[in-house]
Amino acid sequence: MTGLKEYDKIIIGIDPGTNLMGYGILGISKSKPRCIALGVIKLSRMESHYLRLSHIYQRVQTLVEQFLPDEMAIEAPFFGKNVQSMLKLGRAQGVAIAAALSRDVPITEYEPRKIKMAITGNGAASKEQVQEMLRRILDIPADRLDDQTLDATDALAAALCHHYESSRPVITGGPKSWKDFLAKNPDRISK
Amino acid sequence: MTGLKEYDKIIIGIDPGTNLMGYGILGISKSKPRCIALGVIKLSRMESHYLRLSHIYQRVQTLVEQFLPDEMAIEAPFFGKNVQSMLKLGRAQGVAIAAALSRDVPITEYEPRKIKMAITGNGAASKEQVQEMLRRILDIPADRLDDQTLDATDALAAALCHHYESSRPVITGGPKSWKDFLAKNPDRISK
Repeated sequence: MTGLKEYDKIIIGIDPGTNLMGYGILGISKSKPRCIALGVIKLSRMESHYLRLSHIYQRVQTLVEQFLPDEMAIEAPFFGKNVQSMLKLGRAQGVAIAAALSRDVPITEYEPRKIKMAITGNGAASKEQVQEMLRRILDIPADRLDDQTLDATDALAAALCHHYESSRPVITGGPKSWKDFLAKNPDRISK
Repeated sequence: MTGLKEYDKIIIGIDPGTNLMGYGILGISKSKPRCIALGVIKLSRMESHYLRLSHIYQRVQTLVEQFLPDEMAIEAPFFGKNVQSMLKLGRAQGVAIAAALSRDVPITEYEPRKIKMAITGNGAASKEQVQEMLRRILDIPADRLDDQTLDATDALAAALCHHYESSRPVITGGPKSWKDFLAKNPDRISK
């Protein structure tokens, strides 16, 4: 890992779950995105729900302190199997969000389908397809990726999706209507 | 409000929701519970979901710093209308939990039914009944309570429920079975 100063912007991607939490750190240098770090935090071996939440909170806070991201992108499913699992997922998301809020990192959330679409062009792409596309786009050495990093690349995909979304050219201040255009450009009216 | 030093234990009760968050601070002095503070934070006028979460996080952290509670009791429904509302509720709970975790305050959660049962003897009691019972038990001046404080008394009820639960006599270290008792007390066997 090279120094963080070379990056114009750093985005942390988070995929919080109750059993696994994936994270990916994306650095943007001269508009080119690069993978700075990625990892998976295993929560399933912790029995207590509070221990898991505490762990997510502390790890996200540590990542924020370590990589000083400018923004956070979070993979946030809006639909789930049942109300119980959604409550637990909401709590996991809540503590991760709180960790970012406590360090004033702005958060944007993306639905899984939107992330997959942004990275692979297919909203129903598999985790493997997302990982493979990220490997190519970000030029990640193949030996750094395997089945164990599939949740990490999901999180990195959220960060890259956010980079694409926020660097998309936005045309503002243009004419609102044809009438408006003509009013602003009287010389373009042929007389 | 008198000083906090007179209390042997302080419990903060939280009823986190996405539109309203109630809180109640209970002080225990010589086993006698007293209401130190209670209030409702209105979130509905904040448009952004993140602004609400940030507000819950900051307010809970401020309450923890202000009243230095030893423990937190949280009213946590496990069932809801739909997965969307449960995800939002989970997030609200998550940030409140994170605020307590960040200050190392242990958290215990109670289902609404359990709280109502502990306070009124009826698991299906109304908010008004809970408030009225709290007024009597904690000797709260009637003019401090009204329709606006119903969510605050719900939170205070969670704190009182936790006090009852944690001060219930627990017999530990005793014999696990009759056989165990006899093994530990050979002199008590009549020969």
